[in-house]
Amino acid sequence: MTIFSRIIHGSIPCHRIFENDRVISFLDVHPLSPGHALVVPKEEKAFLHELSAESAAALGCALPLIAKAVMDSTGAAAYNILQNNGAIAHQLVMHVHFHVIPKYEDGRGLGLVWNGHALDPVAAAAMAADIASRLR
Amino acid sequence: MTIFSRIIHGSIPCHRIFENDRVISFLDVHPLSPGHALVVPKEEKAFLHELSAESAAALGCALPLIAKAVMDSTGAAAYNILQNNGAIAHQLVMHVHFHVIPKYEDGRGLGLVWNGHALDPVAAAAMAADIASRLR
Repeated sequence: MTIFSRIIHGSIPCHRIFENDRVISFLDVHPLSPGHALVVPKEEKAFLHELSAESAAALGCALPLIAKAVMDSTGAAAYNILQNNGAIAHQLVMHVHFHVIPKYEDGRGLGLVWNGHALDPVAAAAMAADIASRLR
Repeated sequence: MTIFSRIIHGSIPCHRIFENDRVISFLDVHPLSPGHALVVPKEEKAFLHELSAESAAALGCALPLIAKAVMDSTGAAAYNILQNNGAIAHQLVMHVHFHVIPKYEDGRGLGLVWNGHALDPVAAAAMAADIASRLR
């Protein structure tokens, strides 16, 4: 059981902003910028791909509503949604959580390092076919 | 109309990995790491908070399935989900899209700059109450 389960069960307090049967949302205690919020399924799973369809749909529905409320409240005009899976991908709490991180004109918010490279079309065709086959 | 609408309408090709009535997914043409995929609602909206509940739920359901298929295909053990809203938040195409970015042990993938600070509990209580009031 992680700290998020304790928050869900009410044994640890949080600055709650939203809750329904499947999802809870509260302010991050170590924000990257004012209004940085977490959106957490009540289902206890470490990784996004382990979630039930019901939890995944509920998270999908909650994210835009929470993002809008955070932006309206803070006055931020931009934001990033981030969800990390695995320690090397910067996941610290092993219970699925989406970050809603307002981005301000002065730079406060999430910093991204974007080292993209051109896609090899031949390798990409094979990879896309392989991924698609796993989704059928 | 952005390049993503042209992909959805079939006038520009893509390396497609998934499609249903509301969502399409294909490989990013400028990947941060092998398997970097985009998950895109067919609804033409620039920002997440503008999406219909139906599109938001469909995206929520698609993300875990696509993430699992990408991880299984690439062998990556970690990944980041990222969705950017606004130019200063690194949004380049003004049509909602989630990135699924595998993170590899050698560091390939999304780079994050994480400058958090401790939450002020008094200011946080007021902020959480204000955000929550906008969600009722």
